[in-house]
Parts: sequence; structure tokens; C-alpha cells
Amino acid sequence: MEIKIVKQILAWNEDVSEEVKQLLREKNVCLVNVMGSPGAGKTSLIKKIINDLRGKFRIGVIEGDIAGQIDADTIDRMGIPVVQLQTDGACHIEAMSVQHMLPMFDLDAIDVLFVENIGNLVCPAEFDTGAHWNITILSVPEGDDKPLKYPLMYTVSDVVLINKIDALPYFDFDIEKAKQRILNLNPKAVFFPISAKTGEGVDAFCEWIERQIAAVKEGKTL
Amino acid sequence: MEIKIVKQILAWNEDVSEEVKQLLREKNVCLVNVMGSPGAGKTSLIKKIINDLRGKFRIGVIEGDIAGQIDADTIDRMGIPVVQLQTDGACHIEAMSVQHMLPMFDLDAIDVLFVENIGNLVCPAEFDTGAHWNITILSVPEGDDKPLKYPLMYTVSDVVLINKIDALPYFDFDIEKAKQRILNLNPKAVFFPISAKTGEGVDAFCEWIERQIAAVKEGKTL
Repeated sequence: MEIKIVKQILAWNEDVSEEVKQLLREKNVCLVNVMGSPGAGKTSLIKKIINDLRGKFRIGVIEGDIAGQIDADTIDRMGIPVVQLQTDGACHIEAMSVQHMLPMFDLDAIDVLFVENIGNLVCPAEFDTGAHWNITILSVPEGDDKPLKYPLMYTVSDVVLINKIDALPYFDFDIEKAKQRILNLNPKAVFFPISAKTGEGVDAFCEWIERQIAAVKEGKTL
Repeated sequence: MEIKIVKQILAWNEDVSEEVKQLLREKNVCLVNVMGSPGAGKTSLIKKIINDLRGKFRIGVIEGDIAGQIDADTIDRMGIPVVQLQTDGACHIEAMSVQHMLPMFDLDAIDVLFVENIGNLVCPAEFDTGAHWNITILSVPEGDDKPLKYPLMYTVSDVVLINKIDALPYFDFDIEKAKQRILNLNPKAVFFPISAKTGEGVDAFCEWIERQIAAVKEGKTL
């Protein structure tokens, strides 16, 4: 399928994330914003979720990248509706771009839309995309000190996925220490240790996300 | 020693990076800007370089972080002059901040100054710090596709250190593929595969950097 390519919109408007939320409410679509460092495993996770949930829900993906479309090509080959946002150097995705892209999907035929944000622990944390849920992936090789260095990212994240746990034997990463540092910033954070590679822990996370999608379908405001 | 803490200066001026370079020339100080994703191994590398080169050169460090000072504390405990730049949420370091911090060092007693930039593959690539050399660390767990997704970072980097090579057996990372992708963007890029953890490959990189520092000391403009 031909993949729609969108250039980042730089104009900005405080009310836009509220307008995005309003449209999602009307359409009962759950929007999930996936953030994390470059290489943390955002695309791998989204692919894993698609495989696990595609029998139950209708899924769409917004792929954010500075350049290129390799991730969108991957999702497209899975037969999932995808729009590629190319930010042309910009370091995050804003609600304005999401608002512009939503009509490119048939929202009546979508239950959940995943946004893969730019790989970056700084700027994406500063801009509301209008998503119901902010999910951040912290991968084991990055180190358990990341919450100390990038506090805002963990403050705005509802869920933290600790990814690449299959690599725990090879890195000095203390899961409990990472959790505690995140809870100090954000006492409501929910954690799932996972390996998007081996699939370990992904089931538990998918059950969680299924409950959130179901709630949005029932018209519950999150 | 008490560590100086500096807040990011947001004013900006095209000529500042030239002024920084001019001051460095006058003082024969080599400035090295170290970039990379969060957790790529910037601090570990700088610690390793300090241990390898402290007998030969007088070293100083500018630590850039969004918040906190844990890396500066580490460098300070090694007995190395360090200034902590806290960017208060900003995603990169600009020449204006470097210019403001240089007089906090005794530049007549410094041969080389390392800047640890914010962990981010996007914004630091867009701002010249005035450094002689831009070094980017690409760590094996991040994946060999990063040059495709963050092309500007690799375009502006003189040296790419492929770090965490001790973890190569556990990740699907093709060094030759990564190199080729970077060379397509930047045919002059120089590579060193290293492990800041085990020390493998760090000697070869330190020899390279020794030659650059010596050239600056001899008044050669890079």
C-alpha cells in the first residue's frame, strides 16, 4: 500500500491537544504515545503489540521520524494502516501534527492508534500529543540512572516498560533502583519488565492495554 | 572541591562559536564535544580517557545535563576540573554556554576540554559548540539502523565510536553495515570500535586523540 508521508507542522496552538482528545472521544479511539531513547525498542514493541492484539482490535500507527520511512514500511508490510510523519529535523511530535494526521485514518475502523514518537528523552516529554496514555521504554543497556538525568520524561509517563530484560545478565542494571527513581518522580507510574525480542512480559502489558482500549470503546474518559 | 553549576544561557548569536574557537586558539586548548543517545556511554568514555591520558595532558570537563550533577560529582572525585551545565530542560548545549563556562577553567593549565553533551541524537547535532572535534558514540544495543533515522548527527560527527562491543554477541548489530550507513552520510568519518566497560579498543582511540591534542598545542589550526 502507498504510505502517506506528512511533513511536520510547526505552527502551534495551546488548544490543539484538547481538540485531538475531543475527536478521539467522538470516535472512541484510544491514542497511545510511545516514547524512549533511540534504539530503546519502540518499533519492536509496536510490532509485538500488533501481533498480539490484531485479532481483537483494529490498530493504526503514526510513525514519527526525522527522516526516512523504514519503520512505516515495516508496519505497512504487516497490513496495518500507517502514516509516516517526517519531522525534517524536529525532535518531537506535537498535537498539531497528530490533529493533521488523524483524518488520514478511517477512525470509524480504528480502535487504537499508536504514535511512535522521535527517539529522544528530552523534547517529546515537553509536548502533549493529545494521547490518552504516555508510554516510555527504558531499555536495560541505557542504565538505571536515566530517570535521574531525564526526569521530565518519567514524570509525564503513565507506563514505563523496562525493555531488553533478556540482556540483564550482561549489564549493570538494577530494576528496583530504576523503579524507585521513577516512583520518586511519578508515584502513579505503572511498570512492566519486558523483552520485545523474546516476548517475555509482553503478555502482561498487552492485557493492561486491552483493558484501556476496552474502557475507551465503552466511552469512559480516561 | 565545590562544583560550579551553570544554568543554560538561551540567548544566541551566530558569531559565538567563532569567538569560542578564537579563545581556544589563543590558549592552545583542544575542545572535544562528546554526543550520543542517553546511556550510549558518554560518561564512561570520558572517565576512561581521563585515566588513560591524565599522565600526559591536563584535562577539564564540561558536564551537560538537563538536571542534577551526578556525572560532575564523578569527574570531580577523579580530581579533574569540572563545570556542570544544567540546561533546565533544554535538549542541547550551545556555543553561548560554552563561552560563558570557559573562563571558569584556568585555561593556561588545560590542554584538552571535553564537553559531555545532552544525551540526544537530534538537537545537539544542530548547534555548533565551537569544538574542534565532534565525537558521537553509537552503542551496540541501539541498533545499526540509527544512522538512517538520525542522519544529521552522523553527518556532523568527525569520529564515531561504536561502543559496548563486548555486547555484540547478544545483539543483532552489524558493524560494517553501521559504518557504511555513516560513510554514505559523511565519507570522512573516522571509526573506533570500543568497549568503555572492558577497555577494548580505547587505546587506539586515545592515540588518535593524543595526536589531535598535540597538534592543537603546537598551534596547528584544525
